[in-house]
Amino acid sequence: MNERIREILSWYASENPGVRANLARMLNHGRLGGTGKMVILPVDQGFEHGPARSFAPNPAGYDPRYHFELAIESGCNAYAAPLGFIEAGAAEFAGDIPLILKCNNHDLLNDEKDPISAVTASVSDALRLGCSAVGFTIYPGSAERNQMYEQLRDIAEEAKSVGLAVVVWSYPRGSSLSKEGETAIDVVAYAAQIAAQLGADIIKVKLPSEKVEQPEAQKVYQKYEIPISTLAERVHHVVQSAFNGRRIVIFSGGPSAPDETFYNEVRAIRDGGGFGSIIGRNSFQRKKSDALKFLDTVMSIYEGSIQ
Amino acid sequence: MNERIREILSWYASENPGVRANLARMLNHGRLGGTGKMVILPVDQGFEHGPARSFAPNPAGYDPRYHFELAIESGCNAYAAPLGFIEAGAAEFAGDIPLILKCNNHDLLNDEKDPISAVTASVSDALRLGCSAVGFTIYPGSAERNQMYEQLRDIAEEAKSVGLAVVVWSYPRGSSLSKEGETAIDVVAYAAQIAAQLGADIIKVKLPSEKVEQPEAQKVYQKYEIPISTLAERVHHVVQSAFNGRRIVIFSGGPSAPDETFYNEVRAIRDGGGFGSIIGRNSFQRKKSDALKFLDTVMSIYEGSIQ
Amino acid sequence: MNERIREILSWYASENPGVRANLARMLNHGRLGGTGKMVILPVDQGFEHGPARSFAPNPAGYDPRYHFELAIESGCNAYAAPLGFIEAGAAEFAGDIPLILKCNNHDLLNDEKDPISAVTASVSDALRLGCSAVGFTIYPGSAERNQMYEQLRDIAEEAKSVGLAVVVWSYPRGSSLSKEGETAIDVVAYAAQIAAQLGADIIKVKLPSEKVEQPEAQKVYQKYEIPISTLAERVHHVVQSAFNGRRIVIFSGGPSAPDETFYNEVRAIRDGGGFGSIIGRNSFQRKKSDALKFLDTVMSIYEGSIQ
Amino acid sequence: MNERIREILSWYASENPGVRANLARMLNHGRLGGTGKMVILPVDQGFEHGPARSFAPNPAGYDPRYHFELAIESGCNAYAAPLGFIEAGAAEFAGDIPLILKCNNHDLLNDEKDPISAVTASVSDALRLGCSAVGFTIYPGSAERNQMYEQLRDIAEEAKSVGLAVVVWSYPRGSSLSKEGETAIDVVAYAAQIAAQLGADIIKVKLPSEKVEQPEAQKVYQKYEIPISTLAERVHHVVQSAFNGRRIVIFSGGPSAPDETFYNEVRAIRDGGGFGSIIGRNSFQRKKSDALKFLDTVMSIYEGSIQ
Amino acid sequence: MNERIREILSWYASENPGVRANLARMLNHGRLGGTGKMVILPVDQGFEHGPARSFAPNPAGYDPRYHFELAIESGCNAYAAPLGFIEAGAAEFAGDIPLILKCNNHDLLNDEKDPISAVTASVSDALRLGCSAVGFTIYPGSAERNQMYEQLRDIAEEAKSVGLAVVVWSYPRGSSLSKEGETAIDVVAYAAQIAAQLGADIIKVKLPSEKVEQPEAQKVYQKYEIPISTLAERVHHVVQSAFNGRRIVIFSGGPSAPDETFYNEVRAIRDGGGFGSIIGRNSFQRKKSDALKFLDTVMSIYEGSIQ
Repeated sequence: MNERIREILSWYASENPGVRANLARMLNHGRLGGTGKMVILPVDQGFEHGPARSFAPNPAGYDPRYHFELAIESGCNAYAAPLGFIEAGAAEFAGDIPLILKCNNHDLLNDEKDPISAVTASVSDALRLGCSAVGFTIYPGSAERNQMYEQLRDIAEEAKSVGLAVVVWSYPRGSSLSKEGETAIDVVAYAAQIAAQLGADIIKVKLPSEKVEQPEAQKVYQKYEIPISTLAERVHHVVQSAFNGRRIVIFSGGPSAPDETFYNEVRAIRDGGGFGSIIGRNSFQRKKSDALKFLDTVMSIYEGSIQ
Repeated sequence: MNERIREILSWYASENPGVRANLARMLNHGRLGGTGKMVILPVDQGFEHGPARSFAPNPAGYDPRYHFELAIESGCNAYAAPLGFIEAGAAEFAGDIPLILKCNNHDLLNDEKDPISAVTASVSDALRLGCSAVGFTIYPGSAERNQMYEQLRDIAEEAKSVGLAVVVWSYPRGSSLSKEGETAIDVVAYAAQIAAQLGADIIKVKLPSEKVEQPEAQKVYQKYEIPISTLAERVHHVVQSAFNGRRIVIFSGGPSAPDETFYNEVRAIRDGGGFGSIIGRNSFQRKKSDALKFLDTVMSIYEGSIQ
Repeated sequence: MNERIREILSWYASENPGVRANLARMLNHGRLGGTGKMVILPVDQGFEHGPARSFAPNPAGYDPRYHFELAIESGCNAYAAPLGFIEAGAAEFAGDIPLILKCNNHDLLNDEKDPISAVTASVSDALRLGCSAVGFTIYPGSAERNQMYEQLRDIAEEAKSVGLAVVVWSYPRGSSLSKEGETAIDVVAYAAQIAAQLGADIIKVKLPSEKVEQPEAQKVYQKYEIPISTLAERVHHVVQSAFNGRRIVIFSGGPSAPDETFYNEVRAIRDGGGFGSIIGRNSFQRKKSDALKFLDTVMSIYEGSIQ
Repeated sequence: MNERIREILSWYASENPGVRANLARMLNHGRLGGTGKMVILPVDQGFEHGPARSFAPNPAGYDPRYHFELAIESGCNAYAAPLGFIEAGAAEFAGDIPLILKCNNHDLLNDEKDPISAVTASVSDALRLGCSAVGFTIYPGSAERNQMYEQLRDIAEEAKSVGLAVVVWSYPRGSSLSKEGETAIDVVAYAAQIAAQLGADIIKVKLPSEKVEQPEAQKVYQKYEIPISTLAERVHHVVQSAFNGRRIVIFSGGPSAPDETFYNEVRAIRDGGGFGSIIGRNSFQRKKSDALKFLDTVMSIYEGSIQ
Repeated sequence: MNERIREILSWYASENPGVRANLARMLNHGRLGGTGKMVILPVDQGFEHGPARSFAPNPAGYDPRYHFELAIESGCNAYAAPLGFIEAGAAEFAGDIPLILKCNNHDLLNDEKDPISAVTASVSDALRLGCSAVGFTIYPGSAERNQMYEQLRDIAEEAKSVGLAVVVWSYPRGSSLSKEGETAIDVVAYAAQIAAQLGADIIKVKLPSEKVEQPEAQKVYQKYEIPISTLAERVHHVVQSAFNGRRIVIFSGGPSAPDETFYNEVRAIRDGGGFGSIIGRNSFQRKKSDALKFLDTVMSIYEGSIQ
């Protein structure tokens, strides 16, 4: 294991060797293995948005095996999906790529103002399917957030006790936030802090905007002149907000954007000290050859082989 | 075991041998045994609609033994019913036909806008009664759906751990859907996807209409020109939405219709790549001799001996 | 054991020998022992209506021992009561009469539109007190019905696993029913079906009226000309609705009525194929000598020694 | 053990020897030991009303040891208090007086229309602290009553299984009762019945007024001319309502009153067949010397040494 | 162990030796070790107020190690924080300072009128991380308070059974209190009493104002002329309200104030018989050198080396 990975693992000294081994497994896997950067393929859109909205742009994606193949061929660090998708490939691709079992999910057939996901898989499922980690979404800002935090705690405690790492999707949503506030810099930084305090090993947040949502926070950002005008600065602030960089924070891009825009966001993540990207729709909703080229560019930026 | 059944079982490689054996038991039983097609007799209408509405058209059906006999004599692959009906015949007909214990049920004496069924039987019940599978209904679209998904997960995890297969009735309902939306093609496809992601081994949905309910989905169906104008195309799209055909999806017909209409629906299921039918009221609400003739025709269409 | 009791037990072939032995114990006890008919004394009115409304008409009833004595001396098949009343006599009258521990109860100090009873005793209580069965009330039609069904399932599963029979009081109530609808023939038949599907060994319902409550049911009753004009016909339809007579269904009379009216109801239960009566206030709210005479007449009608 | 205590214990023949031994321990302790009468000191006012309202009148009471001393020196049968107060003296006064651990409590910092107490101690706490009984409050009439009844059942079942007696405070309150109705004779009698049916060994109720709250009950009280005009008659009716005197019923006096009034209430309890008093604020809110004199008079009345 | 610590421990005679050892560990640690006074550093503001509002004033605090260092170098008795912060330093600073794992937390991304915290850590977490105590916040006055009391009871019972001490933050809040009422003397004293009755070993409350919130309490404060005009008198009354000084009560200061004001508050705590301070924002939101000087002064006041 190289120095950088050793350093990262040192931040997790309270975790048992099983959890640290699984973190190492993900950090050392794939094309970015050993760099301390990660690109993860998540495919929960079938549950979250329905099958046609997810897979019609590239119908190969209706088949769960496709995503295993895409993640493996592109050299991702890990592949994350709900129970059904993992079950549908875990035997065939056993040992080929670290797996993250997404343990809760939300659908849009009934979209609440204060959302909460259903718990849809267990730590036992993750173990029997050979996963390296469990994934869990929380919605800070939702009136139901306490229930999600407590579900996460239960799953995280059980997962860590059997050596699985814990990946938390921390997505502010709910009646107390404006739509733009969901990606406001103060809110995203707060979401990263909450996930870290809840014991997340890896934290996934959305890229933050320049907006500051909370009046009390606004005073502080102005008084202390926290730099948030560039995306790299905002990434830096979010990473700082997750234990001053001592927790792995990765970023998602949201709906599809022109590739060059996306590459620039990756550059900002890299320059701001972020640990990588979790890229779903932007990769699996195009043909595999295009997706491989796209992910190759992303990874090259993280590697530094492309500036 | 023939090639087709072996192929189907290969999609369930993450399940333990017990679950796969029970899937094989159902796939290999009855007149369609070995074809990869299934016809299942479900009789939960007594609970769902009350006894007179269910059994007055053919009073022999008040007796729980009647349905065992009908399923056996017609050569169905399996018989599904709530606890009471299964208990009332499981000893007498032990070993004669694979049984599916319906583990939740809903009655109409209090009909809510956002329905949820009561959990009315357990995995232990299924085991002591010699069942091959548990059955469970979810109502995607209901504000109570998360609770149902979580109840299903608990029962499914326990059932699979003891080698029982899991059959999910996925019926969109609730305040967020229009009445017609419950069978809209996008909604039925979404319901199939959700059931598959929740780990269902066999998925039961209603036959979809041409309607597209969700505006966001409509854009996608139009942009990618997903073919949904014929029933066979819609069946194909639903099967595709359940892991590209790698999960067994069967269809129910709803209230009674002229037989020829029904046979045409069966042809569409067959031609669209569906795996079979689950036929309740259309079979047990007529005299047994008529029902046997009716089911004979249905199975002949699936076999291909009738076009 | 005589033929009739053997026949009745044959309907319960899925139950373990312990449950069947307790059913036999109740069927073979008392004056009607061996006839296949039952008269049960229930005394939960103290909890349900308060002590003065229950016992002031015959103050001997304040003493819990009185009801044991009344049930024993009159030759009832069993005595049913809440925890406190059973505890207050179970030691003194151990082995003298089969006991049914009523495991949930409802009081009128706060009367809700959608009622639910409190669970007030456990299967362990029933075992330590030497009971033959547990009793449980459900209110189909109440918005809280799912919770009651699930509580019943838990208790029934545990009770049966230790050899106790399960007696279900199925009383439609709640905001979705009219007051008269609670005893409408379609509703009572539906309530009997639900109890049977939930696994009840013995079902207690109220005597049904000629009214049909549900519009959808009304169509069926008319189309198929289900005979419901006499009380005996309605009893027959309810018994048919509980697995075509293959579950023990007994009837309660409600508030006090002239004795001759009551006897005629008993005749109708007998002639309609009902299995007996559960008689509370009509027996314990009169002097013991009167009650013994009254119950003697009731049992004579069931025996056939009085027409 | 004398005849009277033996007689009282005979009413509890369904309880195990452990519970009966603890009942005997309380009945035989202190100045009234062996008389079948009890005076219990309860000090939960600190939790229920706040510390100043409880202890400022006699600041010695801020110290939890004071109440142990008061109960011991006055010769009470038992001392009842919440977890903290019991923990603060159980070691020092181990074995000096039977203890009742009050397992739920309510504060007035948020006073609901339909109150429910928090469960604040467990049966394990009672065992490790050397208690003879657990205490629990229910509020019949509250919309939350079912939850309290079920909490009580859980605690009572566990407590009795380890030989602890169960003392129930049955205090009607809630949106369905008028303020005066909380102590109406029909309501208090109903509350005693409910506690007895729930399995209480000792029942604590408030002294009832002449008012009859419920219209349905009023008819019965008039028709059967139940005597309720004197306090002794009302006490008799409440005791009758708790299994015709076969459960220990004790009475609380409520807020402070002139001593002579209080003594007359004690006389009425004695003359009506009540089993004693539970006296909190009237004893610990005066100087210890006064309290000892006051309790001496109360006990003398129960003994009969004072008429 | 010196006499004063022995005396304090004698108040906890009902606790097992494990709990008493951990209390001793905290009382004997740091600069105030052995004095019976405590200063604790709590850092849960990252969760409670968000990272920027908490750490921007002194960015070193984004790093969880900083707070361990600050607590150790200043000679605090213990350090308290949520799971994530404790996990991020427990291995590196193992054995250097007693740790208090804050087991529930609240964020402001959705701020309810009747707040409740999420349970975010467990007793097992506290054990595996080498903590001496668990910390838990209750909000007396909130409509959700019963749930918090019951969560605390569960955690406290489990914690004590494995030898961990229990520290309770008792902060009145909720719809039934005015904003000023949250620190009213009657309310703070009541909050201390509730925490003590719930079994808290160490109680943390806010410094009380002269306001009396509850009308019923006001009458008592006036009638008995309870001295509450100086802060020291109010501290004395709060300590008296927690079992007459037989529970450790420490005080928090709230948002930053001029240092001299703060020192005067510390003098009042000392003079009123309080046991110390829990100081968060006032210490970690300034540079470390300033914080060390500030805490040095605070501890000197408690020691008595500064008047």
